[in-house]
Amino acid sequence: MPALSPEELYLFDTTGFLLVRDAFGAHEVASFRAELDRLPAGDSGFSNTARYTDLPEASPVFRRLALDDRLVFRAREVVNQPLRLLEGYALRRGPDSVLYLHGGNAELLDLGEGSVGRDMSITHTYHDGKLYCPYVKALIYLSDVQTPDDGAFCYIQGSHKANFPLLRPRAERGVRTSLIDDGFPTLTDVLVRSGDLLLLNEALMHGTRRKRSPGDRLLVAFGYGPTFLTDWRELDGETSDLRGSGYVDHDVEEDFVREVVSAE
Amino acid sequence: MPALSPEELYLFDTTGFLLVRDAFGAHEVASFRAELDRLPAGDSGFSNTARYTDLPEASPVFRRLALDDRLVFRAREVVNQPLRLLEGYALRRGPDSVLYLHGGNAELLDLGEGSVGRDMSITHTYHDGKLYCPYVKALIYLSDVQTPDDGAFCYIQGSHKANFPLLRPRAERGVRTSLIDDGFPTLTDVLVRSGDLLLLNEALMHGTRRKRSPGDRLLVAFGYGPTFLTDWRELDGETSDLRGSGYVDHDVEEDFVREVVSAE
Amino acid sequence: MPALSPEELYLFDTTGFLLVRDAFGAHEVASFRAELDRLPAGDSGFSNTARYTDLPEASPVFRRLALDDRLVFRAREVVNQPLRLLEGYALRRGPDSVLYLHGGNAELLDLGEGSVGRDMSITHTYHDGKLYCPYVKALIYLSDVQTPDDGAFCYIQGSHKANFPLLRPRAERGVRTSLIDDGFPTLTDVLVRSGDLLLLNEALMHGTRRKRSPGDRLLVAFGYGPTFLTDWRELDGETSDLRGSGYVDHDVEEDFVREVVSAE
Amino acid sequence: MPALSPEELYLFDTTGFLLVRDAFGAHEVASFRAELDRLPAGDSGFSNTARYTDLPEASPVFRRLALDDRLVFRAREVVNQPLRLLEGYALRRGPDSVLYLHGGNAELLDLGEGSVGRDMSITHTYHDGKLYCPYVKALIYLSDVQTPDDGAFCYIQGSHKANFPLLRPRAERGVRTSLIDDGFPTLTDVLVRSGDLLLLNEALMHGTRRKRSPGDRLLVAFGYGPTFLTDWRELDGETSDLRGSGYVDHDVEEDFVREVVSAE
Repeated sequence: MPALSPEELYLFDTTGFLLVRDAFGAHEVASFRAELDRLPAGDSGFSNTARYTDLPEASPVFRRLALDDRLVFRAREVVNQPLRLLEGYALRRGPDSVLYLHGGNAELLDLGEGSVGRDMSITHTYHDGKLYCPYVKALIYLSDVQTPDDGAFCYIQGSHKANFPLLRPRAERGVRTSLIDDGFPTLTDVLVRSGDLLLLNEALMHGTRRKRSPGDRLLVAFGYGPTFLTDWRELDGETSDLRGSGYVDHDVEEDFVREVVSAE
Repeated sequence: MPALSPEELYLFDTTGFLLVRDAFGAHEVASFRAELDRLPAGDSGFSNTARYTDLPEASPVFRRLALDDRLVFRAREVVNQPLRLLEGYALRRGPDSVLYLHGGNAELLDLGEGSVGRDMSITHTYHDGKLYCPYVKALIYLSDVQTPDDGAFCYIQGSHKANFPLLRPRAERGVRTSLIDDGFPTLTDVLVRSGDLLLLNEALMHGTRRKRSPGDRLLVAFGYGPTFLTDWRELDGETSDLRGSGYVDHDVEEDFVREVVSAE
Repeated sequence: MPALSPEELYLFDTTGFLLVRDAFGAHEVASFRAELDRLPAGDSGFSNTARYTDLPEASPVFRRLALDDRLVFRAREVVNQPLRLLEGYALRRGPDSVLYLHGGNAELLDLGEGSVGRDMSITHTYHDGKLYCPYVKALIYLSDVQTPDDGAFCYIQGSHKANFPLLRPRAERGVRTSLIDDGFPTLTDVLVRSGDLLLLNEALMHGTRRKRSPGDRLLVAFGYGPTFLTDWRELDGETSDLRGSGYVDHDVEEDFVREVVSAE
Repeated sequence: MPALSPEELYLFDTTGFLLVRDAFGAHEVASFRAELDRLPAGDSGFSNTARYTDLPEASPVFRRLALDDRLVFRAREVVNQPLRLLEGYALRRGPDSVLYLHGGNAELLDLGEGSVGRDMSITHTYHDGKLYCPYVKALIYLSDVQTPDDGAFCYIQGSHKANFPLLRPRAERGVRTSLIDDGFPTLTDVLVRSGDLLLLNEALMHGTRRKRSPGDRLLVAFGYGPTFLTDWRELDGETSDLRGSGYVDHDVEEDFVREVVSAE
């Protein structure tokens, strides 16, 4: 039996994500929270955001979760290649944290001799009734996110199939602010409850609103893709021996947004 | 200056490969041959064919060759992603050796729940004036291959952009022979001399004719692709922990051809 | 100077339409209304909906409007082919009128020997920085539509690039109601004022809500496409001499929705 | 029963044409020749080439032939839309006649505000096991063409799926000769006998060699496409009222080749 109904597949294809309500029960959510409380967290590089890295390695709870049918069966139907787990991590975010927009199907990436408008690690296609998404994430919410101020997941509609870049032309016009703060006609929030699962095509341009409410916002994420993709790790660029492996970022809001430090 | 002229780019795009005559001089060819004579060879799994694995690791000569501008500059212009070296090997073939057809843009790959018609490790695309080929090989010939009986490289025209599979329907009709022997209206030979370079989109269905002439047929090959691809290694299928990495084959002639052992 | 800014082009590409506020002033709107009041209206085939056909032929006012730069310059930038006017009409809708969903990039069309998932008259593509939409409509609102009950334009997000059909699988499950009434997670309303212009990629699945408010809802529409497209006219199917020309519908909600006649 | 076998469909898809040997018998060929001998011919605009226009209108023989299952069944399987007949003509060519290269998937077309790299009247696609070719020709040979000097049909391999233009960059380098005379690595001849049928995707860049042999070279051609395409007629560009319909040429060799008038 397919893990996704025809309408769920239609939604994932046309919007770039699928929200599965109540995929995990309250007891499971509590056990994931407890396990994270037990694990050491590192710096995420984002403000007020702690990152738990390599969860499948760090914990048998998350090793099992990474292989849970509720995640894997769904990921399979949109990757449609022999599958592997590319990463597993958690983010615990406090007040004032934010995650700027990243992703997008046609954002630019500078190479030595000019720029390109495809990041093949997220370039998806369709053939004979099946989607082929090379990088798919399963986000498991361990907190309610019921208003934008809870740090809601937000995305640009249709950006997973965009033919044009959005961020570079904007930066070239001199804009140094985030669409998350400025707004955009198709910037849309997704409100969730703990236990909800969000299956995400990484080609979708997405981020989160600034968290302004008290309390933490906790989420576990697993990345899936074809077996020929390397584990996720950031790479600044090619290595001189051409043996370095990893993921080189195309344009993301982080590259352009100039943080205004408030006086308070 | 671009490494490929507009006509060379047109040819690579429309045919799936580009032949660069005399890319390497006689002295270089001789030095590559001498270096291979010095190195140990293993079993390739193909009849009368020795394989030299991991050349960049095995030899400084080939470590340098893998980074030679004549290869890398050209590969860059058809990969158009931050680049890495995926493999480097040599094949020394003797009489009666053959390499059956493999590749093709829409050959089938069996997954648990049916089959798929895309192998994303070779699925290429085009956007805004640039090609994006994830797996490109540079073949450097160290032998003349002047007749089909020298074991000529052969390919199915247009197969790198095929919308339909060729091998599975044929096998389902009960055919157990190779197109290399049976012929096909668009099966075409490429005749080369030592020192020639063949830049190949791995999505092209290709192989070699049966070598019937005396002497060896020696070739060095390097694979290039985006930094997020893992080193080439064969993988039979997913591992149970979903951490196994490698390349899982879609249909190739080897899966279907039944060798008739001759009585001689 | 391009008629569409980069962000407008991004929006048209990613959402399948572009809303241009206040494209026409109050005087112009009044003059279009007056001209339509003067012209004879026919039956549209939809309940409580009058249709004014072939406006460019019927009236010099609309002949000029069809060629107005505000429409044509914008249409040119998304058609990107030598242009022609395919149709020009107006719809005056009264209470209880509705326009069921139609369009969609992958809805099914029955041919003699099976069904197909492409209607090439709306199949659009992109190449080297330009969109190629073969059927684009300019909708000029002559009424405010400020609530769904005013008969709002509504659409299914991302349906202009959908890889899967939506309507046929739903009908095969036995559903005989409209998504306009049942709702769908990505069914979205567009609220407008008179004088607004909506530029529409006909591949978007769209329709209107049931009009429940009093008063009329008046709109003028012009269709644009490449010069090799015939004038819009409905065709039931091929003619026996293969000389008949026109547009054959793929699946639309009208084919499946069973009207429940109210007892009143 | 499908009119095309899987291998024929693979060939049409990958090469842009399909040659059907002996589709018509000697008696039929003779009757078509006799009918053309009876009909008036006009000037084709090409040297030593007479053109018979609108054959289905001019003759019941060709009205029937246009609807012959051998043509229509095959055309249907590559158009996959409600079908219509777009044109029907014959060409009788004498010595020294030539047909320069035209077609190609990405040749340029100048519009008012720049150029575009798609001619949507020939832009084909694939979806769920079916090809969608909007302009398909059936060429019925009434002469043997057994050497290039008989004025052989020739084409550029893979040009029906080319991502890059070929002719404009060449002209911009100042070249004013035809690839038919200069040669090109992938320019290929198709040799036929009378009674053979060539089914052609008009996106393929094709033409004919210079006819140097004595005798005529006679061929009947029918064009098929979706019902929303207009009859074939040449259009120089848009008409001022945007009501003109027809086909506007993208770059073809005729635009660039400078004929050298021989002194003889």
